[in-house]
Amino acid sequence: MDTSARLFAQNGYHATGIADLCVANDLGKGALYHYIGSKEELLAAIHDRVMDEVMAGADRVAEAGGTPPEQLAALGEELLEVIHRYPEHVWVFLHEFPALTGERADAFRRRRREYEGRVEEVVRDGVARGDFRDVDPWLTSMAWLGMHNYTYLWLRPGRRLTARDVAAPFAEIFAEGIRRPDTP
Amino acid sequence: MDTSARLFAQNGYHATGIADLCVANDLGKGALYHYIGSKEELLAAIHDRVMDEVMAGADRVAEAGGTPPEQLAALGEELLEVIHRYPEHVWVFLHEFPALTGERADAFRRRRREYEGRVEEVVRDGVARGDFRDVDPWLTSMAWLGMHNYTYLWLRPGRRLTARDVAAPFAEIFAEGIRRPDTP
Repeated sequence: MDTSARLFAQNGYHATGIADLCVANDLGKGALYHYIGSKEELLAAIHDRVMDEVMAGADRVAEAGGTPPEQLAALGEELLEVIHRYPEHVWVFLHEFPALTGERADAFRRRRREYEGRVEEVVRDGVARGDFRDVDPWLTSMAWLGMHNYTYLWLRPGRRLTARDVAAPFAEIFAEGIRRPDTP
Repeated sequence: MDTSARLFAQNGYHATGIADLCVANDLGKGALYHYIGSKEELLAAIHDRVMDEVMAGADRVAEAGGTPPEQLAALGEELLEVIHRYPEHVWVFLHEFPALTGERADAFRRRRREYEGRVEEVVRDGVARGDFRDVDPWLTSMAWLGMHNYTYLWLRPGRRLTARDVAAPFAEIFAEGIRRPDTP
């Protein structure tokens, strides 16, 4: 799966043929189909890998609890850890999701919306509790997601910045950005 | 160019053949090559269209002047206007830039860095003047770009939200997020 994610990330999903996947994975066509089923199943598995990790992080944050600003910071750190650890999977995830079809496309959209809903819910709670000013929870969650997801272009293993190096200043921008003015 | 941008956005650059471009543009192969030169030239032209608009916006902001928070807000509105107006070009721009090669790839990277440098410069000025707290200008410009660029997934002509509807709350999140605490 890792090898195939690299190939899809480099050459694009549609431009990657079964023959390319066989060579890169050192498998014959029969073995590849046996293990994978189809090229689209492989793509779905790469998407699931990213979503599994991202949702596991969101579950940890929900279990740990804390104030909405704390939860938003923890969600950011979890998300950036996934992006940092799986740059090729995330590249494929963010670029090739329109190639999923039928039930696989539906399942992907459901999980993606579920995660986005978690972020939105934390913002909504923060507004209700008075930690945050009266922002639009959906639009604010989109701003938050963009700020974090977009690091996939430069957040890589082995480079200068770790996920934590980025998570802390991002969390501060965001927490200050939507804080209710008269709160500490 | 618009028709081809739509095709590249829908099917991916590598998976779009010259024959597909001929059908979509209602041109013969000879005419297509005459007008376009090559598929990669077409891709570069789509990138240039986006960069031309984005840089023109940045130039307007620089000419208008104003405080760093005002300039950042104006840059955001200009950028969101381009994303809103050219959803397919921007999709291709954000997904297919690795397909550019040689001098075209260099030219694209130069222009993209030039724009990112404009954003970073405004942040740097704001820190120097004391409008903003002591943030890392590069990391902050990446957060800003992510927040704005990522709207390409849902900011579309004809939908509920205009570029301005989004630009104002985004500017507020950002300005508050990096404001020096003891400034108004």
